[in-house]
Amino acid sequence: MAMKLTPSGFVVTEGVRGGALLAFPDSVLRGIGQVLLQDNSYAGLLFLLGIFVNSPLFGMAALLGAVASTATAMLLGARRELLRAGMFGFNGVLVAIALLYFLTPNPLTWGCVVLAAAASSVLMAALLELFRGWRLPVLTAPFVLTALCFFLATARFGRLQSTQLLPTAGLPSAATVEGVVDAGTLWEGTLNGVAQIFFQQNPLSGGLFLLGLLLGSRPACLLALGGALAGLLVGWGMGAAEPALRAGGYGFNSALVAVALGGVFFARSGAAMAYAGLAAMLAAFVHAALSAALEPLGMPAMTSSFVLVTWLCVLAGRGFARLRAAPG
Amino acid sequence: MAMKLTPSGFVVTEGVRGGALLAFPDSVLRGIGQVLLQDNSYAGLLFLLGIFVNSPLFGMAALLGAVASTATAMLLGARRELLRAGMFGFNGVLVAIALLYFLTPNPLTWGCVVLAAAASSVLMAALLELFRGWRLPVLTAPFVLTALCFFLATARFGRLQSTQLLPTAGLPSAATVEGVVDAGTLWEGTLNGVAQIFFQQNPLSGGLFLLGLLLGSRPACLLALGGALAGLLVGWGMGAAEPALRAGGYGFNSALVAVALGGVFFARSGAAMAYAGLAAMLAAFVHAALSAALEPLGMPAMTSSFVLVTWLCVLAGRGFARLRAAPG
Amino acid sequence: MAMKLTPSGFVVTEGVRGGALLAFPDSVLRGIGQVLLQDNSYAGLLFLLGIFVNSPLFGMAALLGAVASTATAMLLGARRELLRAGMFGFNGVLVAIALLYFLTPNPLTWGCVVLAAAASSVLMAALLELFRGWRLPVLTAPFVLTALCFFLATARFGRLQSTQLLPTAGLPSAATVEGVVDAGTLWEGTLNGVAQIFFQQNPLSGGLFLLGLLLGSRPACLLALGGALAGLLVGWGMGAAEPALRAGGYGFNSALVAVALGGVFFARSGAAMAYAGLAAMLAAFVHAALSAALEPLGMPAMTSSFVLVTWLCVLAGRGFARLRAAPG
Repeated sequence: MAMKLTPSGFVVTEGVRGGALLAFPDSVLRGIGQVLLQDNSYAGLLFLLGIFVNSPLFGMAALLGAVASTATAMLLGARRELLRAGMFGFNGVLVAIALLYFLTPNPLTWGCVVLAAAASSVLMAALLELFRGWRLPVLTAPFVLTALCFFLATARFGRLQSTQLLPTAGLPSAATVEGVVDAGTLWEGTLNGVAQIFFQQNPLSGGLFLLGLLLGSRPACLLALGGALAGLLVGWGMGAAEPALRAGGYGFNSALVAVALGGVFFARSGAAMAYAGLAAMLAAFVHAALSAALEPLGMPAMTSSFVLVTWLCVLAGRGFARLRAAPG
Repeated sequence: MAMKLTPSGFVVTEGVRGGALLAFPDSVLRGIGQVLLQDNSYAGLLFLLGIFVNSPLFGMAALLGAVASTATAMLLGARRELLRAGMFGFNGVLVAIALLYFLTPNPLTWGCVVLAAAASSVLMAALLELFRGWRLPVLTAPFVLTALCFFLATARFGRLQSTQLLPTAGLPSAATVEGVVDAGTLWEGTLNGVAQIFFQQNPLSGGLFLLGLLLGSRPACLLALGGALAGLLVGWGMGAAEPALRAGGYGFNSALVAVALGGVFFARSGAAMAYAGLAAMLAAFVHAALSAALEPLGMPAMTSSFVLVTWLCVLAGRGFARLRAAPG
Repeated sequence: MAMKLTPSGFVVTEGVRGGALLAFPDSVLRGIGQVLLQDNSYAGLLFLLGIFVNSPLFGMAALLGAVASTATAMLLGARRELLRAGMFGFNGVLVAIALLYFLTPNPLTWGCVVLAAAASSVLMAALLELFRGWRLPVLTAPFVLTALCFFLATARFGRLQSTQLLPTAGLPSAATVEGVVDAGTLWEGTLNGVAQIFFQQNPLSGGLFLLGLLLGSRPACLLALGGALAGLLVGWGMGAAEPALRAGGYGFNSALVAVALGGVFFARSGAAMAYAGLAAMLAAFVHAALSAALEPLGMPAMTSSFVLVTWLCVLAGRGFARLRAAPG
């Protein structure tokens, strides 16, 4: 099944399989697939498998997040075609994993996961309306904003406990080159870059995500791989810390940018590929910048650079004659 | 007199009482009323009384702010129906109180109050134009932005002196549960939550503001009370510091959100009430987050979470079939 | 040749001189002219001379930045009339100077200059599209955002070395009045204020920039001078540090605001002049605020206050009957 995501983020899903009974689980799986811009429940299933392989806890969280955000949108009466395409699921998936990654898993945190997933659906609807005039996709902005809100609140709410994975607040200072990059950094860093799209640091998970992409769209698989590598190489060339490179820290945003610009929002052409490549490289700079900008708050940048770079490049593309928007 | 504020923030005030002579003072009082979204000069008068009861200084500031911002808009030639509805007054009221709350009262500060109130009217006109396509209300965004500008400038301008009420800049860190919540926290915190809408920490002021709301619209009064309580309960449940809860710190944004969503921007229905309730709860999280986000700058979050949550929920509501916008 | 910049930032350049061969260098010089909103290659030439007089390094950077950003936009197929008017050059000029001002000049930095200038053209196209509905000019926002991105990245990229001119990250604290303002502060500060538009701290450069403005438009020259003085006086009155005043730190944003509002975006009138004057004064407050807000990141505010104040005042002007937009 080909991707049906249109440049506007409005999806027309003709010929969706399954009757009324299977509609909800199918929407939930598509929600997981949409994290990598795939309106495809089989891709979603493989992504879920890739998460479970690394951590059953995150697998459960992903499922709960997709269910809670999709169900909230359904209860509020969101448009059926958006629901069916998983458009109200992917931000819930990421919010849920992020909350369990950065907050101590206890009953209150699980309650917050449900609340945050619900909030991400409200935010999704708000941004769909806000961006309608520009035909701009919402991407994972609701996830980033909702997660930041809950993480920041830990500084006021004594019962919301963060794990040690949340960065400590500090003032940014000049970096020095740390560690030595070897062949292992390159292949592990690239696969981890794909895996980090779902907060997983595990080359096997990255491989399963690529397999899921292959089901959705062959070019998307190559673009994700190339994007993750491009981000890694920029980070290496500019002197980023080796542990961050190996963990995939400079890969996930570039991978998402490459898939979005090279495979979804522009018609395939040499110019579009060059543009996607330039954007994937810039995303590594923007990620470095945003992660430094959030340092005084002790907050992770997550997919903020993917979102910003893709928005800007989609908008800019309309002013450039060499690029054509993908057919609706 | 029923509320005439339309979802777009454009107000049609048919049958406004008073001739040309009384038009200006009436506009000023409506400006005070609009802080709580009431286009009603009697409500404005009671709000002003509620401020004077707690502090004549703030009462004078509120009056000066309303006059200066309304007069600026008049001199520049703003639309008469907006002026008459107090739309160029409410941000001036809040800016003036905020500047005298956080800056040492001296002649330079009073000069800044007039300048800031004038600037808030320019900002109001700018945001009305910016948001026109979305039919989105401006709310108290001009107040928050203008006040932040003047408070931040104290770090560069040696003659602009802050009081000790302005938070000290610091890096956010994990909170612990502080103090014990008792019945006094609950009733005092709820009334203070309403009072804090005008920066007053005094249950009597809160009571007078509720009385003013009662004049404007009975449901608005109940919604403000319920919203302030909801914010307080969320803060309590999540482990916010007891002194902050008692002072009404988690109440004022939730109270405003409840009034805006439950009473002004959506047609009354069970779904709208549930939506307003959810939003009032989320506003407590967003307030905690924004207040932590502003900690490295030593800045107060003021009504920023009311503004953001209301904007997002108004936008999102259009995508949800269960909610209907209030009739224009 | 009169200014052709329309309020929308879309420029119609009828009767542009020079054949196809001269088109590119002419576009590049207009790009330098557009930093001060002049669609005029002679003005651009004088601005370039003013930079070379102070520093050949920055002169080369300005030229490279204009060439790289204009060429990128050309390769991507940007609209010819925008290219010819220098609209894809001025942000590249400023980004290039800024990068060499705040980063150690080495081969990697020069590579970053080209990449950043290219990125500024993508950002320009994106913002042109984003602001089209509002007919809002993009101004130097792409410069500010691109430069901040590269400066912030120094905290993650060990091979990107900053000079000692980049502020150290710190927490903002209350200022005290520093130094004594004398006549020298006033005239030097005013000329430096104009010179700082291109990051030059040299009264002679400021004088040459004013001469260039005189070629483009006589009122623009007076407005720049008056704006720089107004910003300086506000800073002095509010107690800003004398060295910052003398260096032109409170002048450049106010000068740009005065030129933009008094000479470009509104039809000339007494009300427009008063409005531009009020805005130039407010720009000094906004600059103080933004420079404090960026202190925890150790980032310079650059022309961010010019951009914000001009956007808001252009938008607000449409709601005020006393002001009329300049004829397209």
